[in-house]
Amino acid sequence: MKRIDWNTLTEAERTAALARPAQARADSLRRGVEQIIATVRAEGDAALRELSARYDHCALDAIEVNDAEFAAAEARLAPELKAAIREAAARIEAFHRAAAPQPVGVNTAVGVRVERVLRPIHRVGLYVPAGTAPLPSTALMLGVPAHIAGCREVVLCSPARADGHCDDAVLFTARTVGVHRVFKLGGAQAIAAMAYGTESVPRCDKLFGPGNAWVTEAKLQVSGDPDGAAIDMPAGPSEVLVIADADANPVFVAADLLSQAEHGPDSQVILVSPSAALLDTVAAEVDRQCAELPRGAIAEQALAQSRLIQVQSLTQAVQVSNRYAPEHLILQVNGARDLLDGVESAGSVFVGAWTPESVGDYCSGSNHVLPTYGYARSYSGVSVASYQKQITVQELDPNGLRAIGPCTATLAAAEQLEAHRRAVTVRLEALGTRL
Amino acid sequence: MKRIDWNTLTEAERTAALARPAQARADSLRRGVEQIIATVRAEGDAALRELSARYDHCALDAIEVNDAEFAAAEARLAPELKAAIREAAARIEAFHRAAAPQPVGVNTAVGVRVERVLRPIHRVGLYVPAGTAPLPSTALMLGVPAHIAGCREVVLCSPARADGHCDDAVLFTARTVGVHRVFKLGGAQAIAAMAYGTESVPRCDKLFGPGNAWVTEAKLQVSGDPDGAAIDMPAGPSEVLVIADADANPVFVAADLLSQAEHGPDSQVILVSPSAALLDTVAAEVDRQCAELPRGAIAEQALAQSRLIQVQSLTQAVQVSNRYAPEHLILQVNGARDLLDGVESAGSVFVGAWTPESVGDYCSGSNHVLPTYGYARSYSGVSVASYQKQITVQELDPNGLRAIGPCTATLAAAEQLEAHRRAVTVRLEALGTRL
Repeated sequence: MKRIDWNTLTEAERTAALARPAQARADSLRRGVEQIIATVRAEGDAALRELSARYDHCALDAIEVNDAEFAAAEARLAPELKAAIREAAARIEAFHRAAAPQPVGVNTAVGVRVERVLRPIHRVGLYVPAGTAPLPSTALMLGVPAHIAGCREVVLCSPARADGHCDDAVLFTARTVGVHRVFKLGGAQAIAAMAYGTESVPRCDKLFGPGNAWVTEAKLQVSGDPDGAAIDMPAGPSEVLVIADADANPVFVAADLLSQAEHGPDSQVILVSPSAALLDTVAAEVDRQCAELPRGAIAEQALAQSRLIQVQSLTQAVQVSNRYAPEHLILQVNGARDLLDGVESAGSVFVGAWTPESVGDYCSGSNHVLPTYGYARSYSGVSVASYQKQITVQELDPNGLRAIGPCTATLAAAEQLEAHRRAVTVRLEALGTRL
Repeated sequence: MKRIDWNTLTEAERTAALARPAQARADSLRRGVEQIIATVRAEGDAALRELSARYDHCALDAIEVNDAEFAAAEARLAPELKAAIREAAARIEAFHRAAAPQPVGVNTAVGVRVERVLRPIHRVGLYVPAGTAPLPSTALMLGVPAHIAGCREVVLCSPARADGHCDDAVLFTARTVGVHRVFKLGGAQAIAAMAYGTESVPRCDKLFGPGNAWVTEAKLQVSGDPDGAAIDMPAGPSEVLVIADADANPVFVAADLLSQAEHGPDSQVILVSPSAALLDTVAAEVDRQCAELPRGAIAEQALAQSRLIQVQSLTQAVQVSNRYAPEHLILQVNGARDLLDGVESAGSVFVGAWTPESVGDYCSGSNHVLPTYGYARSYSGVSVASYQKQITVQELDPNGLRAIGPCTATLAAAEQLEAHRRAVTVRLEALGTRL
């Protein structure tokens, strides 16, 4: 892990110290995805079968998972895992229901009622990757809020294994959280199928979920096409920033850094501390724990680009974090909650020694689909609101029009929009009022 | 206006009847905008001056509006218009404050606190077009929620006239609603400047506002670049769908259709009614009113592509509306509010005879920056939430970790993420618990 003393750096060096590996959209990737999307749009299911054979090395007969497959998956799954999935779903549901938007109504003038009503997005498409390992937790995080929002049709795509089946835990989770249909599709072709529809796959209004570079590029392309689909957010490799003080437990800090590093070789891991001693101890502890991990080789690659940053104070540590805008921020300091007010940009925050990031990945109740790559400066994680439309409504009675009609007419005149003005004046005249 | 009998149409004809003019991203437009963005990134302010001379035909000295210009604009403005701007701002503020997200906190298990906190997006960039006429109302709609959200730096770009000045009403509005800095920039170059920054223009985290095809393409390009900026939503030409019954006042209905049609030749105007007689009367009334309008020639072009759709019932009218997903939906029927529950996709709804769309454009209190082109199927209009990040927070005490640690460990094991599991078990072991 690279050691950095923040206060010896120039401004340019600080920017470099917090830089993520470039995510520039390579032309080759862009063209490859364009081609996949065009093929799926032109050839539908036939293209999906051919692309699944080429990329997922599986021969798909039916593209959609059928009831027998769901039942077999459930029967094979360990009872303990099923119980954990149900338990996690319940807590995710509890928090997401509490945080769901509510209808609003106010009178902004006498006779002028203005409201906001909520409607589910009709058809949503969820993407659950299954790269190095299947991710039932992502099915939880995407499916629970879709169910709370009341989306009429919830579709999920996840790549099949070479044997032509999806992961048991993903299938069980999909059924548990109310997903309506599951398709054995991965990669850019899954995104194309949900965005434009095929004979088997319904066309969805909005797509959700993480994925590799191909999936991310496909999501960007379909969201930029007026005839495509909306997306939750762009996605990049996962990342964590830990702020720890001299009293932090180095075993805990090292375990948290490693739980991020094991995601993939491109994961980002940063530790910021005012204590040189803590940085030293954690570095040694990371090496020790890493050697014991089954995915230690992956973690080592991520750690090679990760950083230990020494700062002057916890206040400065929070400044560094805000500048980086991490997906996950862990505060392992005395009085951790006191730092929270200063946190401006982060996907999700983990407060205190007893809150490892992994509880948020699975079952504290918050969502784990979060903005990466500095998108936390402007994006929020997935929530029930992501699956809803907020529609404004206004209703005026004659007194309301008398009250705000003149203001409307004045502003319309200033914008030289005479028909806008007349839509008010013809009504006021019908009420016997002339402006 | 084209007359259509919905129940004589095939499914394909229905789709065609509701089709918008294609908004496909033309390659020439895409390349033109790519070049403008590249020029602004490479040459900064110098590029902005050159592009403003070329496209806005003005010689910019300072790019930023200075205090003397703000003062002169305020001095020149009619007192009645200033009062209307202030009055509109107050109602917009009242509704947007009522609809703003609130912090949330729940315990999802004993010792497990999960919260959502709100933070303003630090730097936001607002775009206010000034094509055929300046649009101070857009400055209101973008500036008020930015102020409520508490964004630290609110930047606004609006093109200068040939005399090198921005519109007086736009400048006065910007100051009234708390915009911090205004730049005399329009088109794709304004979007590029705010997304990447120049010597004069600060780099913004998220960009807001409507614009022409160049502005929209530039917003799409910067939002697809990981080093660019987020955007509020894609934008297309403005549109209205009116549902009216036999008792609706044809003078009001015609005025509402025309207030949309006068926006531009590409505006979309649709009237849906179960009453053939009403469709006839409104068509005649539209012709009569249109002849009196200063922008009648523009409205006529929009009306040439607009539609009068006859349906069997009001229920079917709402189905047609949901399929179209209009930016603005006007309900001019007896018991208009009864139709509201059936409305699934619309930007903003105007209920009853006394609620012309123009009150929402200016001062009922709702926002007029709304999803067009069918985006109302998945997007919502601008609100305070658009200017905020919702950050989730979790804090466990030892009992909380004992409560949800086992579930976390089980799910981590299922995903073969051993380091995720150990981040829990090292802590439980420190508490004397072994899984």
